Amino acid sequence: MTCAVLSIGTELTRGELVNTNASWLATGLTELGFEVIEHCTVDDDKGRIVAALDRLARAAKVIVCTGGLGPTTDDLTTVAVAAALGVGIERDEASLDHIRRRFEKLGRTMSESNAKQADFPAGAAILPNPIGTAPGFAVEIHGARAFFMPGVPREMKRMFDEHVVPRIREVAPNDSHQLRFRTFGLPESVVGEKLDGIEAAFPGVTIGYRAHFPEIEVKVLARAADRSGAVELAERAASEVHARLGEVIYGNGDDTFAGVVGRALRTRGWTLAIAESCTGGLVGHLLTKEPGASDFLLLDAVTYANSAKQAVLGVDEDALRGHGAVSAEVATRMADGARRVSGADVALAITGIAGPTGGSEAKPVGLVYLAVSTPKGTVVKEQTFPGERYWIQTLAAYMGLAMVRAACKNI
Amino acid sequence: MTCAVLSIGTELTRGELVNTNASWLATGLTELGFEVIEHCTVDDDKGRIVAALDRLARAAKVIVCTGGLGPTTDDLTTVAVAAALGVGIERDEASLDHIRRRFEKLGRTMSESNAKQADFPAGAAILPNPIGTAPGFAVEIHGARAFFMPGVPREMKRMFDEHVVPRIREVAPNDSHQLRFRTFGLPESVVGEKLDGIEAAFPGVTIGYRAHFPEIEVKVLARAADRSGAVELAERAASEVHARLGEVIYGNGDDTFAGVVGRALRTRGWTLAIAESCTGGLVGHLLTKEPGASDFLLLDAVTYANSAKQAVLGVDEDALRGHGAVSAEVATRMADGARRVSGADVALAITGIAGPTGGSEAKPVGLVYLAVSTPKGTVVKEQTFPGERYWIQTLAAYMGLAMVRAACKNI
Repeated sequence: MTCAVLSIGTELTRGELVNTNASWLATGLTELGFEVIEHCTVDDDKGRIVAALDRLARAAKVIVCTGGLGPTTDDLTTVAVAAALGVGIERDEASLDHIRRRFEKLGRTMSESNAKQADFPAGAAILPNPIGTAPGFAVEIHGARAFFMPGVPREMKRMFDEHVVPRIREVAPNDSHQLRFRTFGLPESVVGEKLDGIEAAFPGVTIGYRAHFPEIEVKVLARAADRSGAVELAERAASEVHARLGEVIYGNGDDTFAGVVGRALRTRGWTLAIAESCTGGLVGHLLTKEPGASDFLLLDAVTYANSAKQAVLGVDEDALRGHGAVSAEVATRMADGARRVSGADVALAITGIAGPTGGSEAKPVGLVYLAVSTPKGTVVKEQTFPGERYWIQTLAAYMGLAMVRAACKNI
Repeated sequence: MTCAVLSIGTELTRGELVNTNASWLATGLTELGFEVIEHCTVDDDKGRIVAALDRLARAAKVIVCTGGLGPTTDDLTTVAVAAALGVGIERDEASLDHIRRRFEKLGRTMSESNAKQADFPAGAAILPNPIGTAPGFAVEIHGARAFFMPGVPREMKRMFDEHVVPRIREVAPNDSHQLRFRTFGLPESVVGEKLDGIEAAFPGVTIGYRAHFPEIEVKVLARAADRSGAVELAERAASEVHARLGEVIYGNGDDTFAGVVGRALRTRGWTLAIAESCTGGLVGHLLTKEPGASDFLLLDAVTYANSAKQAVLGVDEDALRGHGAVSAEVATRMADGARRVSGADVALAITGIAGPTGGSEAKPVGLVYLAVSTPKGTVVKEQTFPGERYWIQTLAAYMGLAMVRAACKNI
């Protein structure tokens, strides 16, 4: 079953916005079993919107469209759809009422331009928008089901899930199933090489990759005669994926690496302290982005200056002078100091050269020392990470979290 | 002068990748003065690629295309272009040589599938790829200039800048000029209201907005009879934008808020210490993402647990017990403690409730206290930020940075 995604807006065609709506919708449609054959983005030009609708409706069975439902004069979706269908525009009193009440709640008066958001092509089915002023609508064009939603991602996502999916699920092939795995530790090309041949070994399975640096998401999409066959096929292929990638897979679906590390600490019942230098707070930020970090995180001492390493962590001047701030010795002392100061069960320290300046022949940009201190002692690692500042910081933070996770498992 | 962006790849139509290439190219084309009338994304299907090329070549004068130049069997761009032109495929020996040498440098042997990347539609002009194996190429289709580049963003961007722009600049209208301003402190709707009427007052000017939470970028695009007229018009409109937004504009072009705050500290010759609680390292991360933070940043003490606030910052137990960790008193003591421990000139402290749990009627989720300590004394602010955990943390971090910036200016 074919479908297409149409995005409307000059802010998109000019590149002022990245079109995340299209990929979000395409993911949802693919998961429902549709074959997405095209994404099309046109500017706020009535003629081009009409032409795109006409064309896509002949090529696809379902069209999912966002944008151009706003109150301003450049919002032309409704008039374009009416023109494509050769019907008039009708004002819907219930929608008008809903919009008026939203404005009243905000203490503002509805203007005539907002009233326009209650206009629909005659005969359209209205899709409610509980969290915004612009309702969506559904029509049929040349036999294709076409859905029109606001461009605001939050409103669009809710409308798609609550009002579009129930209307297209009945026509969705429902013969596919997808499993998603999150990996850290190997580049995309190596993950791809390791999984080479799985598609051939499991006919009906497609392996997809999505790089979200420094992670690679692996998607196992299975198509079969029916849903239960697809689930079974996806699971068989997934166990082969697991066998080949092993520990590189850290989680499923929407797991995050920091979340999984937090879970490992909770499972152990351990508290954590961090001492960061070159990563500048990134490890703390990754852990505390997730709710519930206060269960285990006591302290993250970002001791950027040597004086702070001395004052806060008690790293002695001899170590700093003798080995330099970027050294195994100082990393070890930072981790031990963070554990001592905070009273945490485990402490992670990271010190290195994130660049672009500050490197030397002996200690190049990318050189990082990581130490993990536990009641059993302190482990230190030397790594040289490739790439620019952002890459080095991110890889170092992830590697540090991986060491904390390993410590939770290994003791 | 019209142009279109064509993206090829099933990983895009299925939503596995967000199409950042299209918006990046559209921005560049818009800045050159082209009118981008459509972005089209099709899957790896030869028939659909041919149909899209045929259609876009009739609608636009320039087509910029990415993807489908890889070595695998699903990379079909070259054969599709040859089919659209009705010409054969020819192997280019110089390109083959280049690809072979790249593999040799990596210690690998070139396979026949890689040799395919030296194949081009007969008569195509080859666009070199100095940082990857797949060269690009240029052809004319129905009189439109069409350019084909790899989908890898790094390779595509370099090829566009070095080989496509020089070839299309001569046909570009070159009658436009754009200025970009970065703002923080007002929501997009209010920024829009403040700039209402500028387009009418300066004919030829379009104001664009790009929200990148919590910042709003304002773009002033001017079109005139020629380039110098456009520059002059953009600058006149921009000074009106400046007059209306004032301090809300913190920088131009690619400035970042953290970078601007770092500049203010450098200008003052001040060092900085931070004490974070609910923001969990985000302020340190924002500042140290930029190179050169070691010029001013001494310490970021992320004292997540009360025990760490006591041990590292010397916040006394009475204050924590009497007022609670989220209070003006504790924020003040955290800032003063961070300054004392680190010896910094200025210290910022942030303590609050980022949620989703931990709020109460007296201290709801979103309540944040921010304190800035300088030799002149300590200023503390109470704020209640809306939204979810990520919003609250981000708004609090930005507000804290704004207070540091103000302190640099005001003393």
